[in-house]
Amino acid sequence: MNQDLTDLTDLTGLTAAISAAIRVGEVVRGTTSPNPPVGCAIVGATGELIATGSTAPAGGPHAEINALTSAGARAHGATAVVTLEPCNHTGRTGPCSRALVEAGIARVVYLTADPFAPAAGGAEHLRANGIEVVFQPMRVAALQPWLRSVRLGRPSVTLKFASTLDGFTAAADGTSKWITGSEAREHVHQDRTKRDAIIVGTGTVIADNPSLSGRYPDGSLREHQPRRVVVGKRCVPEGNLTRLGFEQYPTPQEALNALWEAGARDALVEGGAKLNASFLELDLVDAVQAYIAPALLGAGRGVVDRAIADTITEAHRFRITDVRGVGEDVLIEMERDVHRTR
Amino acid sequence: MNQDLTDLTDLTGLTAAISAAIRVGEVVRGTTSPNPPVGCAIVGATGELIATGSTAPAGGPHAEINALTSAGARAHGATAVVTLEPCNHTGRTGPCSRALVEAGIARVVYLTADPFAPAAGGAEHLRANGIEVVFQPMRVAALQPWLRSVRLGRPSVTLKFASTLDGFTAAADGTSKWITGSEAREHVHQDRTKRDAIIVGTGTVIADNPSLSGRYPDGSLREHQPRRVVVGKRCVPEGNLTRLGFEQYPTPQEALNALWEAGARDALVEGGAKLNASFLELDLVDAVQAYIAPALLGAGRGVVDRAIADTITEAHRFRITDVRGVGEDVLIEMERDVHRTR
Repeated sequence: MNQDLTDLTDLTGLTAAISAAIRVGEVVRGTTSPNPPVGCAIVGATGELIATGSTAPAGGPHAEINALTSAGARAHGATAVVTLEPCNHTGRTGPCSRALVEAGIARVVYLTADPFAPAAGGAEHLRANGIEVVFQPMRVAALQPWLRSVRLGRPSVTLKFASTLDGFTAAADGTSKWITGSEAREHVHQDRTKRDAIIVGTGTVIADNPSLSGRYPDGSLREHQPRRVVVGKRCVPEGNLTRLGFEQYPTPQEALNALWEAGARDALVEGGAKLNASFLELDLVDAVQAYIAPALLGAGRGVVDRAIADTITEAHRFRITDVRGVGEDVLIEMERDVHRTR
Repeated sequence: MNQDLTDLTDLTGLTAAISAAIRVGEVVRGTTSPNPPVGCAIVGATGELIATGSTAPAGGPHAEINALTSAGARAHGATAVVTLEPCNHTGRTGPCSRALVEAGIARVVYLTADPFAPAAGGAEHLRANGIEVVFQPMRVAALQPWLRSVRLGRPSVTLKFASTLDGFTAAADGTSKWITGSEAREHVHQDRTKRDAIIVGTGTVIADNPSLSGRYPDGSLREHQPRRVVVGKRCVPEGNLTRLGFEQYPTPQEALNALWEAGARDALVEGGAKLNASFLELDLVDAVQAYIAPALLGAGRGVVDRAIADTITEAHRFRITDVRGVGEDVLIEMERDVHRTR
């Protein structure tokens, strides 16, 4: 914490506001692209939470504007906590930095610096207008795919799979229902609604007739649905995807380019093993979500259909960001290890 | 908690004593077989910890006796917390239940009922002698292998492996150093000292020339060493095992029988893939310890060398008992799921 933030009431209020800002940002994940899912919380001098706001769908107000609108006159002299540095440019909406100044905000605490050149400079503008600005660096999970996408100039790619402990996504006879338990499957459906696109290969479409939708346990559709994307040249047979609509591209790179142009920033690759291998070989996998069932099969269909490394030092390595139990299974989340020797 | 244990000072003292008893029991794991690694803590009326004791190597005093000796006259009127129900029989040592009565202990809290028929009945004997006895059921990790071994009439078997996320214990070219990081390897060496025996197949001996010892990072031997056991009919070539000494048995069942007779209660199977499959097929795997590295290979040597289930509903399933990060890797610990449909 910055030295200015030593008062205990202030610290308690700020801690609660940071947690509220992160939470409301997480809630809009999957609905804001090409904008980042930002959360903002406004907290008064005695630590009371005045208002929160999160990014509206593209074209709508940013998180700060929603929070300021909700706070009204109470924003005067208050502290705004924002998960991302307030933007400083006029896109489809006016700059948030200016709105914070106009609302009479006394202090802005932000958790992530804005890496997006046209929008950066918000902190500087605020300081120039007499606002105290504190950069309190924290890893905000909801922003990671967007941050990566801005850095890479393509959607962030998360490889997702559910397998046994010994790495099989289906048994030798092809059966895979259900490797993981109902809580893990529920988690997958919820996670899909936080993504901009779900990508599968034509082989998976032909074998599994997937819907690529985020559903409730009763089968009904959740509110936000990701784009349904097929990669490969084979024809998609009549089925769930032809009924629901989908996009198809011949290669991973072409799919990512088209998705980027369409505003998608966060894509989930859900297999099969051949497509997984292609994304890995092209060095396009930024994160991995592995649902591991405490089961052993000994043989079956693998996560990846071929060697992507011939020797141990060439293995594709990631850095674990989260491990947790989900029902009877384990979810391990990882990110590309930028420090890996490979 | 039992209704008698509602006084807050008492509860705080008891909670600390339970945690102390569990801790001192864990410390002697691997050194007590065929006796269980029990911990005992004696706590005074105002919650102060008077003494602790744990099971000495076979032939030596049990945990309660060690704690009572250490407590001396202060045991009078105190509470003894024991991870396992005090024994009631005279083996190589006298019954602990009698010693507790003689020391003037007022109350005994135990966390696990004694399933070993000749020694059971301790709680009854204590009650008959006017001691308040509270059974506070808790899962004591250190006792699980011993409890299973008593139930099964053979050593408990834990299958241990280190693999990539996609289930490979070595790359396609056979390299496996190092799949997991130094913290995970250190954890393996520490864990070996808590076991009675390490079992590997002849294939692993021929390929890897293992020492099957618990070592410190500088290569020196840790204090307690497990038995070194080889299963298979092939000749063990000159190497670390012929230098250190080892036992060899033709089959898993014969190895377990011999180990049981020798007093071993907790065995770790460390591969290779063929031996792992044999133990699984014979339904001899009671627990699994999987060190998972956040890496993908796509091909290589598997945890198990052949199908041990042809369809998903036949998969060998376990119940997760612990998941934790170990350095850059994840350790998932599991037990045989007694409720599994299989």
